[in-house]
Amino acid sequence: MPFDISLALDLLGTFFFAVSGCLLAARKGFDIIGSLLLGSLVGLGGGVARDVILDAGVPAAFSQPLYLMPPLLATVLVFFLFQHVERGGNLLRMFDAGGLGLFCITGTLKALGAGLNPVAAVLLGVTTAIGGGVLRDITANEVPQLFNSRDLYAIPCFLGAILTTVLWYSGAMNLVTGIATAVAVFALRMLSHRYSWHAPMAVRGWKHRRAFRN
Amino acid sequence: MPFDISLALDLLGTFFFAVSGCLLAARKGFDIIGSLLLGSLVGLGGGVARDVILDAGVPAAFSQPLYLMPPLLATVLVFFLFQHVERGGNLLRMFDAGGLGLFCITGTLKALGAGLNPVAAVLLGVTTAIGGGVLRDITANEVPQLFNSRDLYAIPCFLGAILTTVLWYSGAMNLVTGIATAVAVFALRMLSHRYSWHAPMAVRGWKHRRAFRN
Amino acid sequence: MPFDISLALDLLGTFFFAVSGCLLAARKGFDIIGSLLLGSLVGLGGGVARDVILDAGVPAAFSQPLYLMPPLLATVLVFFLFQHVERGGNLLRMFDAGGLGLFCITGTLKALGAGLNPVAAVLLGVTTAIGGGVLRDITANEVPQLFNSRDLYAIPCFLGAILTTVLWYSGAMNLVTGIATAVAVFALRMLSHRYSWHAPMAVRGWKHRRAFRN
Repeated sequence: MPFDISLALDLLGTFFFAVSGCLLAARKGFDIIGSLLLGSLVGLGGGVARDVILDAGVPAAFSQPLYLMPPLLATVLVFFLFQHVERGGNLLRMFDAGGLGLFCITGTLKALGAGLNPVAAVLLGVTTAIGGGVLRDITANEVPQLFNSRDLYAIPCFLGAILTTVLWYSGAMNLVTGIATAVAVFALRMLSHRYSWHAPMAVRGWKHRRAFRN
Repeated sequence: MPFDISLALDLLGTFFFAVSGCLLAARKGFDIIGSLLLGSLVGLGGGVARDVILDAGVPAAFSQPLYLMPPLLATVLVFFLFQHVERGGNLLRMFDAGGLGLFCITGTLKALGAGLNPVAAVLLGVTTAIGGGVLRDITANEVPQLFNSRDLYAIPCFLGAILTTVLWYSGAMNLVTGIATAVAVFALRMLSHRYSWHAPMAVRGWKHRRAFRN
Repeated sequence: MPFDISLALDLLGTFFFAVSGCLLAARKGFDIIGSLLLGSLVGLGGGVARDVILDAGVPAAFSQPLYLMPPLLATVLVFFLFQHVERGGNLLRMFDAGGLGLFCITGTLKALGAGLNPVAAVLLGVTTAIGGGVLRDITANEVPQLFNSRDLYAIPCFLGAILTTVLWYSGAMNLVTGIATAVAVFALRMLSHRYSWHAPMAVRGWKHRRAFRN
């Protein structure tokens, strides 16, 4: 997969995550600057963590001003359009799932390109993908969506990162297979929420508790 | 601006932020070690994040023991003096604003000195300045002051970082213009709180909500 | 102390911290994947922060897949065994104290080995040791145990890191003295809780407040 396509997918994932941050900012009553900052944190936080861990110079979010466009666009879109759509968490979850699907691909690819072994690349891809959302929820003083025990969040992400690694090693990673992987991660995440697919609880035999708002 | 003056301003900013951390520790009922640790996190956290992002070796807070003095001093001062002053958030806000003013100058200068482009330098300066306060509030389990929609926090900081960049490129950055910039950021932050100047909400037409204690 | 022994102690500390994360995940009603992720964050977070601050390439947690074993083991153990033990915070505190004791040794040693001065090495050792637990509590939306003003947390850790530095400089650091230091930190932490030893409050003359659940 040539770099510019990877960059395009990375920017699109940044945009999706940034929208989820701006939507949460709207729900928490932040102002438009808070929306821009939370959108930037979510959109860029996972990638900055990835680049810092890879120890490969100044993170792309700081060295390439292009990465500031998605959060700016997300802030403007939420400002003008959000009042015409529902206020609930469905929209936030959908954009978050879109960012999740794209970032577990691009994060894993960047780690593989930096020479990490497959296991480490999957881990760093998952860290990139879940990092922004965790930062969003922690900053807004909520328990991260990641830990909601009534649907799947990390599992689609792990599967996507593993599939990306397999495709990369087999030489079959291209725009079509990359986007197909992202769509599959997105679909699995959303279907798991729709149909309440979930993993076993942390302790065998314990019941679920409803501890989440969205 | 010679390095030692930049260092002096950085240490002063560290002290102001550290006091804000110690004051929050006092209000949350932490002990004196918790006060020292929260003061250190706030005073040093933004700079450590900056140095990690710049990927320039071990951060100054760890390699230069001098940086430990401001948090120690702040802890002692709050321990002995805080009972004689008000317990509210005004003092915390004032010291936080002082740190904000100084760090958006020193953070931006350090980024420019490391060769970052102007846009990235402004961003990193703002990240340095707001980082410590966000870490403080997240660690103490509060929604960051940054997201209070009833006054201005990030805007004075952005303006200060931009002004610093302009002064640096025009060769007009010196001790006087640097301190004047910091004072202007401080004043804009405090005046915005006093007179409730604020940015538009994240969504057009939405009302403000009172969601903050301090 | 040869590297493999240091590695063994580091892995054991990772396991102890991971168990504390899985126990908190159980108590918060997370699922088994959330348990694995929180266990990994606690077990590996402090070490990743240490390695990022040391600026020494990709952190061990990502480059050495061996580091994934302790969180996996902790997740499985908590899943099968936790229902047979108490649900309170005592077990969590005990495993956390075990990780604390080991990490303030291994973190300090790694910093000394990287050439940091003694003061910076103590600081980085303490940061490594308290970092994972703070990340755990912040992520689970609780005020960090570190800030509980009714027992000691950071003081045993500082003492352990200082003792490690003294032993290292005097050439007396070996497996026996290393483990003895870790046990002493563990014991001081647990005894301080049992007998309510505590530091003075952040402000002279203020009373304690009960602000913690566990």
